Amino acid sequence: MSDRFSLYAKIPEPALRRLPWYLSYIKLLKKHGQTNVSSTQIAKKINVSATQIAKDLSYVDVSGKTRVGYDIDQLIEVLEDFLGFKKTHKAVLFGVGSLGAALLSDSGLEQYGLKILAGFDVNETIVNTTVHGIPVYHSDEFVEINKQIQASIGILTVPPDFAQEVADYMGIGGLRGVWNFTPFRIRVPEGMVLQNTSLYAHLAVMFNRLNTKYPTK
Amino acid sequence: MSDRFSLYAKIPEPALRRLPWYLSYIKLLKKHGQTNVSSTQIAKKINVSATQIAKDLSYVDVSGKTRVGYDIDQLIEVLEDFLGFKKTHKAVLFGVGSLGAALLSDSGLEQYGLKILAGFDVNETIVNTTVHGIPVYHSDEFVEINKQIQASIGILTVPPDFAQEVADYMGIGGLRGVWNFTPFRIRVPEGMVLQNTSLYAHLAVMFNRLNTKYPTK
Repeated sequence: MSDRFSLYAKIPEPALRRLPWYLSYIKLLKKHGQTNVSSTQIAKKINVSATQIAKDLSYVDVSGKTRVGYDIDQLIEVLEDFLGFKKTHKAVLFGVGSLGAALLSDSGLEQYGLKILAGFDVNETIVNTTVHGIPVYHSDEFVEINKQIQASIGILTVPPDFAQEVADYMGIGGLRGVWNFTPFRIRVPEGMVLQNTSLYAHLAVMFNRLNTKYPTK
Repeated sequence: MSDRFSLYAKIPEPALRRLPWYLSYIKLLKKHGQTNVSSTQIAKKINVSATQIAKDLSYVDVSGKTRVGYDIDQLIEVLEDFLGFKKTHKAVLFGVGSLGAALLSDSGLEQYGLKILAGFDVNETIVNTTVHGIPVYHSDEFVEINKQIQASIGILTVPPDFAQEVADYMGIGGLRGVWNFTPFRIRVPEGMVLQNTSLYAHLAVMFNRLNTKYPTK
């Protein structure tokens, strides 16, 4: 029973992944002047059943009213809070290559609660420069620098060959979460959180589906 | 039965998503001078069972030999070909904001078969400039320009409020696949391929898991 009172403990990942869709849609409704929304209205737009939406939202500390639905302002606030977008999570990034530099330049991440404080690389032409105002240090300096900046999340954009080694090193420096953008399947110790985002795997899926629908051979 | 002979028809998405992991690992082995690999060896490193790996690889036109395993050079070639990384897929990008510009700057995508030929935006300060050598046009020019460049994939990095409208517009201009980076749940017509990559949803999952393991309240 006690788990029912823990806000973060129990939401399944598929539900968690759907919440940003709802947030994004109700923010649009708010912009159009709407003040209340029902799960049925969200369902029509989002292509998820109203029952599923109500269930997903039951993990969040908010309740709708019969015939009125959810208060939009309240729902936005509660969702942003629940999703962690309103807190600042300090991060560092390893591998300031093409994708790494691109992510350093994406200020959108900060709006969603991820603040990248430093980049690390071994390439001497990049070390001691800044990208989009973010300083880039030599990877060897990471443990020392992280004692000061106390980041908890490490973004991994190194070449795949070094992915595991750098992930291990992140743990040594005190990081608790790894956001892995490499196509390499890294392993992390029990206490660490791993999130894989392989753009190339997504590309492969898209290419495959396109080839199925529009064969070119 | 005829489907069994269609290279692209039947692979399930989870299997497809695992193939890039195998590719990435065997490329590393090749770098270290290895010439053959067994599914058991891949399994040890990748944390997927050898049976599953053999099954996943059965969708690809390659076969291993008893006691010798797969020929690494051949497996790399076949996987890269199957995943579509060796072909050039022409793309355009809508929404040259922070993330959009970042993706235009990521030359890694081209190495995996995605060539972005143009960006489109409505912001007059960006229109008629170039980002990382890629020209940015006004969105109104898209249909005309795509008659010349004949892109098939559209990358969607506009603000969520415009996501659906722009996705519809992409279809009008002849695009067949949409790679949606917005947190908005867009819909596409039957014939179009949709790939969602919401960095913010991934962030939310990571924040949630971190909060579960390391509560800060």
